[in-house]
Amino acid sequence: MAKKKNAFYAQSGGVTAVINASACGVIETCRKHSDVIGKVYAGKNGIIGALTEELIDTSKESDAAIAALRSTPSGAFGSCRFKLKSLDANKREYERLIEVFKAHNIGYFFYNGGGDSADTCYKVSQLSEAMGYPIQAIHVPKTVDNDLPITDCCPGFGSVAKYIAVSTLEASYDVRSMAKTSTKIFVVEVMGRHAGWIAAAGGLVAEQGIPVVILFPEIEFDQAKFIAAVDAKVKEYGYCTIVVSEGCHYPDGKFLAEQGTRDAFGHAQLGGAAPVVANMIKDALGHKFHWAVADYLQRAARHIASKTDVKQAYALGKKAVELAVKGHNSVMPTIDRVSDIPYKYKLGYAELKDVANVEKFMPRDFISKDGYGVTKKCINYLTGLVEGEDYPKYGADGLPVYVTMKNVTVAKKLPEFKL
Amino acid sequence: MAKKKNAFYAQSGGVTAVINASACGVIETCRKHSDVIGKVYAGKNGIIGALTEELIDTSKESDAAIAALRSTPSGAFGSCRFKLKSLDANKREYERLIEVFKAHNIGYFFYNGGGDSADTCYKVSQLSEAMGYPIQAIHVPKTVDNDLPITDCCPGFGSVAKYIAVSTLEASYDVRSMAKTSTKIFVVEVMGRHAGWIAAAGGLVAEQGIPVVILFPEIEFDQAKFIAAVDAKVKEYGYCTIVVSEGCHYPDGKFLAEQGTRDAFGHAQLGGAAPVVANMIKDALGHKFHWAVADYLQRAARHIASKTDVKQAYALGKKAVELAVKGHNSVMPTIDRVSDIPYKYKLGYAELKDVANVEKFMPRDFISKDGYGVTKKCINYLTGLVEGEDYPKYGADGLPVYVTMKNVTVAKKLPEFKL
Repeated sequence: MAKKKNAFYAQSGGVTAVINASACGVIETCRKHSDVIGKVYAGKNGIIGALTEELIDTSKESDAAIAALRSTPSGAFGSCRFKLKSLDANKREYERLIEVFKAHNIGYFFYNGGGDSADTCYKVSQLSEAMGYPIQAIHVPKTVDNDLPITDCCPGFGSVAKYIAVSTLEASYDVRSMAKTSTKIFVVEVMGRHAGWIAAAGGLVAEQGIPVVILFPEIEFDQAKFIAAVDAKVKEYGYCTIVVSEGCHYPDGKFLAEQGTRDAFGHAQLGGAAPVVANMIKDALGHKFHWAVADYLQRAARHIASKTDVKQAYALGKKAVELAVKGHNSVMPTIDRVSDIPYKYKLGYAELKDVANVEKFMPRDFISKDGYGVTKKCINYLTGLVEGEDYPKYGADGLPVYVTMKNVTVAKKLPEFKL
Repeated sequence: MAKKKNAFYAQSGGVTAVINASACGVIETCRKHSDVIGKVYAGKNGIIGALTEELIDTSKESDAAIAALRSTPSGAFGSCRFKLKSLDANKREYERLIEVFKAHNIGYFFYNGGGDSADTCYKVSQLSEAMGYPIQAIHVPKTVDNDLPITDCCPGFGSVAKYIAVSTLEASYDVRSMAKTSTKIFVVEVMGRHAGWIAAAGGLVAEQGIPVVILFPEIEFDQAKFIAAVDAKVKEYGYCTIVVSEGCHYPDGKFLAEQGTRDAFGHAQLGGAAPVVANMIKDALGHKFHWAVADYLQRAARHIASKTDVKQAYALGKKAVELAVKGHNSVMPTIDRVSDIPYKYKLGYAELKDVANVEKFMPRDFISKDGYGVTKKCINYLTGLVEGEDYPKYGADGLPVYVTMKNVTVAKKLPEFKL
């Protein structure tokens, strides 16, 4: 009994359509291992909940509510953008974490996030040695940006990719209908600060004969060359769809549309590349345009989630707990690809030291020679990830039935902590 | 046999997720009435196809291809933004229409569009008398703006409404997750030049406890009052979702974001109200924001079409042909509501003289007293329209299977016509 420890689970960074499916995998699997794992406490608003001792008691949620997480987008326990500094720079926060873990008998730390969060999870995993407190820290991968290393892909990405591919296809059919007398250019702006994975998903429509020009963050923006590429498509097809990544930038690093504000991690907050690109084409070629900025709609779009993605998100949450039960620390479960088409994969794991602070960009051979499209290799990579649908249930109001947790926190045992 | 005439069908104006379902209804029903209706010629790019004698022979399309139109968004035969002037002002175009109709033995004119198109259809319906050529002109209603009079609703609207309601719900869950340390304001811009029907659909999420502030074109924009409304929501809920109609404007009529360009009908081309509103809140209240502009994504979103909408779009296409077979001219089939919940309706029809150039705005009692929400009456109206899902099939590539017509035009019999 002395060995039975509680678990802490937190969601971090930008949420996705399937991060709750990972939460579902973690919590359901912990419930199955009640011989070694006690309660699962979820951090209210991510790691902040651990620091402020706001621990959500997930045992207050019914099995049905936890199961419903699988088809509910967003972060059911709240997420945060908050990066722990290094142990040296901010010992106070780490000491606080340990106090909270001790006070609530927490021995498992499941952190569900992207690159910055993998770094936090790695630091927590080092507490064991550095501060003499036994903790097993497992990172559960999640990021629509798909930029974590080692794993084949990241939960959240497949669903955004499907949403962008489907939406780009639909909007392209629309502009094709209108092109004779009206709109000839449709621009959709997609997420992806540094890596063009999401933008690449727009390229899937080219297989269906849609003329599409993609602007990747990996390819420095060249205005004259870009306009020529669009001009050629319009001349051949009568219209053109443009998928622009929010991270698309000039050779000097300046984003096409930088709003000038920065988020809590110090990253530039982007948005508005689509109108910039659309007006550029209008000025150069005179074509009527329409533009869309998908923003949160894309990453929250559980209604058109990829079945593969939902399955993987759940499986990685489950695997994280299994790794913990087997005694692992400082690891992240991974998707290891076995074949492209049909898409087959196994679950594995990676050491967090190899994951933290490494960003995976689109390989150059996934991008076509001219820089505006995707290669067959890229399409083979993406296809399995966007395969299948996993529809939520809908209510009599015509809306999806998504679950909202009770989010009851346990009684605090420690003095208040100022963030 | 002398009485057997061919039919002309054309798609007009902005396309929708279900205008092809109406095309499917028209063509399939014409095929069933082959005793009185010969071929169905579709105008290539709408009415322009009639003027230029580019008539698509739909008999070249298989039954399966026509059936697939039911689940394919956009205008399969091409649409256009081209408004016929009055008979007096442009007799040349009407004379040409009659020449083409005569040359191809066309006696039925099915025009699938919104308000401007209803006006064109009405003018064509008058040709019979004014120019001594027998033609039966039936308007098939279509507009995401939902602003045609008499009919309970317009095909295309229910699906946009569902898309906006679902997307607003999902994005609101997202911002709720992020609000503690990051984004507190999410703004989504929706279509609706003069009428706030689409914006109202965002209000459906309020029933699920989401704090939402809606900016309607029907309500003059008052910046101070708007900021106070958002401030109150953030103070109560910690976050706020804002749905802004592209048609939202100041008391002097100036749109929140007018790009300064105009379309072929002389309407101002809008877009970009979302960033204006988001920055307004940032300046006044300091909250971090995200914004999306749905644009074509919303009206093309066949993947999340409303089942009611698809059914009605098909039924009205079918009904249009039945009205023609019964000898009607200058009418539009309508949806006549019988009850709200459960939503029941019958099919009827209206005289085009009562439809043309009449715009139906949101009734004031559909908008809450403060002007930023919807009333129970509005929700009761909308619920039936967004009910049910009608998913397209998906291929092995993870994308919906949408059909592309062969669009083979018949041999021209007349000299060229300059538009």
